[in-house]
Order: sequence, then C-alpha cells, then structure tokens
Amino acid sequence: MNFKVNKQIFYNALSIASRAISSNSPVPILVGIRIEAEKNLLRITSSDANLSIVQTLSNEQDEKLGLSVIEEGTIVIDSRYLIDIVKKIDSDEISIEIIDGTLTHFSGEKAEFRINGYRPSDYPTIDFSEPSTRFTMSYETLNNVISGTAFAASVKETRPVLTGVNMRNDGTNLTCTATDSFRLARKQLALSSEPFSVTVPAKCLNEARAIFTGCEEIQVSLSEKKIQFRSGTIVLQSTMLEGNYPETDRLIPTAFNSTLVISRRQLISAIDRSSFIKTDNMTIIRMEINAADDILVSTKSQEIGEYNESLTAVSFEGNPIDISFSGNYLLDALKALSTDNVAIRFTENMKPFVINNEGGDDTILQLVLPVRTYN
Amino acid sequence: MNFKVNKQIFYNALSIASRAISSNSPVPILVGIRIEAEKNLLRITSSDANLSIVQTLSNEQDEKLGLSVIEEGTIVIDSRYLIDIVKKIDSDEISIEIIDGTLTHFSGEKAEFRINGYRPSDYPTIDFSEPSTRFTMSYETLNNVISGTAFAASVKETRPVLTGVNMRNDGTNLTCTATDSFRLARKQLALSSEPFSVTVPAKCLNEARAIFTGCEEIQVSLSEKKIQFRSGTIVLQSTMLEGNYPETDRLIPTAFNSTLVISRRQLISAIDRSSFIKTDNMTIIRMEINAADDILVSTKSQEIGEYNESLTAVSFEGNPIDISFSGNYLLDALKALSTDNVAIRFTENMKPFVINNEGGDDTILQLVLPVRTYN
Repeated sequence: MNFKVNKQIFYNALSIASRAISSNSPVPILVGIRIEAEKNLLRITSSDANLSIVQTLSNEQDEKLGLSVIEEGTIVIDSRYLIDIVKKIDSDEISIEIIDGTLTHFSGEKAEFRINGYRPSDYPTIDFSEPSTRFTMSYETLNNVISGTAFAASVKETRPVLTGVNMRNDGTNLTCTATDSFRLARKQLALSSEPFSVTVPAKCLNEARAIFTGCEEIQVSLSEKKIQFRSGTIVLQSTMLEGNYPETDRLIPTAFNSTLVISRRQLISAIDRSSFIKTDNMTIIRMEINAADDILVSTKSQEIGEYNESLTAVSFEGNPIDISFSGNYLLDALKALSTDNVAIRFTENMKPFVINNEGGDDTILQLVLPVRTYN
Repeated sequence: MNFKVNKQIFYNALSIASRAISSNSPVPILVGIRIEAEKNLLRITSSDANLSIVQTLSNEQDEKLGLSVIEEGTIVIDSRYLIDIVKKIDSDEISIEIIDGTLTHFSGEKAEFRINGYRPSDYPTIDFSEPSTRFTMSYETLNNVISGTAFAASVKETRPVLTGVNMRNDGTNLTCTATDSFRLARKQLALSSEPFSVTVPAKCLNEARAIFTGCEEIQVSLSEKKIQFRSGTIVLQSTMLEGNYPETDRLIPTAFNSTLVISRRQLISAIDRSSFIKTDNMTIIRMEINAADDILVSTKSQEIGEYNESLTAVSFEGNPIDISFSGNYLLDALKALSTDNVAIRFTENMKPFVINNEGGDDTILQLVLPVRTYN
C-alpha cells in the first residue's frame, strides 16, 4: 500500500471514523482504523463490533482530496496514533506506505513516522450491504426524532432492549419510543414504508445525529438485524437490540383530570435552581397545584435543606394535584420540547403525567412517572 | 445575621473564594465558605488550611454592591450549595438570613432556600495579619514570574519543598527558582527589599495568577511562615513550604561547548508531533546536532514505532551533540519562553542543557537534564 492524500480531508474522515471506536473493545484490533487503498479510492472502516462506519473517499467525489494511489493495499493503525500523526504532520499532503509487514511509513515534508500496524487479515469482516426496508429523511427530521427521544433510553444494561429507541412503522406512520421504565419519550411522524418494529441503540442514533450534521438528506435502511444511515461518503450502521420492546402504548394515559399550561423556561429555571438538593443522588420535586396562581414547587433533603418557589401558570383546569417526581426527568422532558409554553396533563397524584408542546409541534410526547415520598 | 446584597457581585466573590476550597480537606468545615456580615461590610473567608482567601466587600468600595446589613452575624455554608443558590436565584438581589441555629434562609423574588450551615465557632481561626517584609509588583511581572517558573515545580509529595517556587532576595535582586530535580526554571528581576529566602507552594502562585487577573498592582508581603498577596478587596495567603531548598546555583552550568539558535515554534511543533510515541508514559526525544543544517530529532518506542525529523537551525556553534531528554520537559521550557528564536546551550551529551530567550527577555532561564537511553 502506498498513497498520498490531502491531510485535512483525510483528518476529517478519521475524526468521523473515531466515533465508532471504543477504548474498551473486547476485540483488540478494533482500537484501529482500517485503511484500504484501491485504484481510485480510499475506504476507511471503524467499528466497536456493534456500531460501524465506512467512508469511501475519491477524487471524483471531492477534487480537493488529491488522492494518488501508487500501490493498492490495506492496513489497520491504532486510531489514536493515526489521528495524531495526520493532525500534526508538517505538510498539506500526507504519504502513507507499508514498508515491511505491518510497519507503515507516514511522511510529510520533513517529519516521518514508522508505526507498527495490525494485520488487516485479523480485522473482522463487516457486512455493509444495504438492508431492503428503505426510506429517506431530512437531517432536520432525523435530528428532531433523536433529540426528542434518545435521552430517555436507559443507560443501564440490565434490560438491554431499553438502551435503544424503538422505531415502529405501521405502513404510514413512524412511532419512535424510548423509555427507561421511569419516563418515556415518543415522537411520531408520517412515513410510508413497509411495516417494521425494531429497536436501535441510542448510542447509534446519537452518533448519527453528530456525524451527519450539515447533510441534507439521509437514506435510512433497515432489517431485523441492522440499521444503516447513508449520506455523502459515509455509511453508519449498527446492529439492532434484540428482545421484545415493552408494550408502551398502554402506559400512556389517554384521559386526564387536570391540565396545567405553564412557561417552559420558568419551569426549567425553577427545577434547575433546586437541582443541588439531592437525596440518594436524586432531586425529588414536589408540585402542589391548586390553581394557576397557586402552585408550589419544593424539594427537601434531610442533610442539605429545602427549597420552595411559588409559580404562576398560564392556566390550570381540573382537580388539584400534589405530585412528586425526579426533577431531572422533568428537566430532560422540558428540554426536549420546543414551545414557549407546555401543557402538563395529570390523571391522579400517583399516576404518570404527560408533557406536550402547547401550540407547536404536537407529534412529540414526554411522560414522567411520579415517585412516592415519605416526607 | 440578616443582609441583602447584589447577586452578581456576591457571586463573583464566592467564585474567587471557592478557589481556596479543596474537596478533600481533612477539616470537614473547610468545604464551607465563611460569611461574616458587619455593619457596613461583608467578609468572605475560605481556606484549605494552607491556602486562604479573605475578601472584604463594602458599598464604599463598590457602590453597585447594594449591601444592606439588617443584623450582623456569621455563618458557614457548603461552598457548592452557596454558589449554586446565588448563581441561580431568581432576582438581582439576594437576601440571606440565619433563622434558627445554623439554618439559613436564602431568598430571591419567589424562590427561597433553607440550608443547613456549619457553626461558625467550629471554623478555624485564620490569621490574616500582614507580614513585615513587603514589596509591590505589577500583575504583569507577577504573571511573568509565575508562568515562567511554577510549572517546573514537582507534583510529587516525596520532597514537599520541591512542590514550591523558591523566592530569594539578596537585597536588590529577586531570584525565583522551581525544580522537580529533572528540570529547572529560573526568573530573576530587580527588587529592593530586605533579604529573604522562602519557598511558596506552586498552587498558591497559580491561584494568585488566576485571582488577580485584571488587577494592576499587587502588594506582596511575607515572613518565614507565610506569604500574602493583596489587591482591591482580596487578600490571598499561603503558608510557606518548610525545609531547606536545594542549592540550585551549582546545578546550572556557566561554561558551554555548543550553542544552538533555533526557531522556538519549529522545535515546539516537532516535539509536539511525536508526543504520542511513549515508553513508560514518557516521550524521550533524541537530538543529534552536527551543524545548523544537520539536526535530527527522533523518538522511538518498541511498541508503537518511531519518528524522525530533520530540522534546520538559525545557527550552531561548537562540538557536535547527541543528547536525549524528556520531550515534555523541553516543551514546557519552550512554552515558558517568549522570543521567536531560542538559544540552547550544551556542555556535554550527559550534562544539563540551558534554554534562553534569544534577543529578548534574558532574565528567564530553563534547564533540562538529559536521560540515558539504551537504544
């Protein structure tokens, strides 16, 4: 293998590649980025065994790439070294050549490196073939779906399927749901496609959101086994999470006894203000609502002390409410919404409550379960 | 205790106070900030037992302070809670009142907190009396002294005196020296004062540099026991490090056999480029110098690989040199200098070498010890 390429474009591709690399991969070679030089293109592959990225760079696609392949070949280089070398090399063009086995020579103007690589034959074969269920989505829509749901997925591995976002299509509508069983986030949108129901790791979605920033259209394709996102030179794919996703529909109340409409920013400020008052590392907020101008938000910790704030809402209708919940969960939910005011709908004090945009995008729903307190 | 004060000015003072607070203090109450309200002033004290800060705020000194003391008194509040409350309170003015024992009430417009404080009688008495050896220094000079030396102090506690910067005055000249016994940094300046030789913790100096940013003149006073910095509303003091500071003068060679004058930036880039090639967590750089246009910089690691770069210097005079040293130490030294070119003076391959500004501030000296390699 022997090629020259523009430093900056190559560096940008390596930065994207590094997003799939986990420092604690069970497969040692996966700390490396696989570089394959073909006649007119570079193929850059990275993976943590579940999440994988392949990028195909060519002069046709970007004339500034300045790719010149003198000899075809493949090498795997530790991503940390590779990125550091390419970032800091002393010229605009970098030359990379295998000189002996896996020993690879990197050179700029006067600086040169000889780095021990990994044998490409040891790199796992990753199948990047495109699954058959396909649709396209604007980056803006994809970003809305992910930012509105992925944060609510579980970070604990006890029920792996809850670490993902369930994406279900009935043929005309896509419903994306994430829950850690204490709160739930759901986003719906019109989407014609074959019906499917899959659970995509939240990590994959968050990476997709970061990697495709600046792209217009993303092509999404999926099967029972994997999901793939494609745009420009980049293919990002992930294995699906296995296991049945819980039936979340029945968790979401449909009839309510009380509705509060309140400034989203005012409520965020109040909860944020009290977030240092923790019991067992959690801020439990109590909301006592009697009328639009009779709302008390409070929290208390034996050790630290207590906080009280009276809020005035835009409106309140229905039965009085006295409910306690995790401040962080409501904070996450409010931040995932977008309108000036939000509507919070309650059934009973010990039942889940639902938060929606008020007078804006109504395809997104946030749900929080109350907690029992013994104050 | 009961007073009202401008939120922003109080918050700024608390931010400064928090710089003296250590999260792992052996004295539990030192996680707190001591607030003392007197008739016309607020006194804010913080300490980690060695480093202490007192700030005295009054309407005379800053009319925007808006201090109104309804009742005098003293309380100690955990700095984390105090800073969070003051930062996020919902008004421009904050009221603070002791309501029961150490239970303290904080209120803004609608938000209020009741926080458990510490008994002020449990707070250690800190003597802020001013030592008798005194001089003033511009912030710029103080900053130059500290940024040129403190980084070279030891971070290991095995020889505590090496974690400080030795400040020695012979009556007319101040010499500041820091060394971790592998490298040394020295800055000298004219300063009339009684003679002294003290060792100030590097931590104290780094905090002084941060805290007094924006001040013009700093008053420094010191004794065998402590050093104090005063400017505006702030007094920062630290206990001195005990123990005899090593005789560093004899470590610094005065006669040289070879002198290299080279671009500071070029050398920084070359060393930085190779810094990922580590053996035992250290990058050992080898410099082979035969002539101004025959300089080879290299580093090698059995595991990772190797790096080579040929450099061209402005000039080289004297015997050829083949020397190895810690890349990080030379990098730190070069960053502490300020001119475009630096002069590096060598005696022998296994002897310390000295780096100075070339054609600029010549009161600063950096010294690095070579390491023996077995390549």
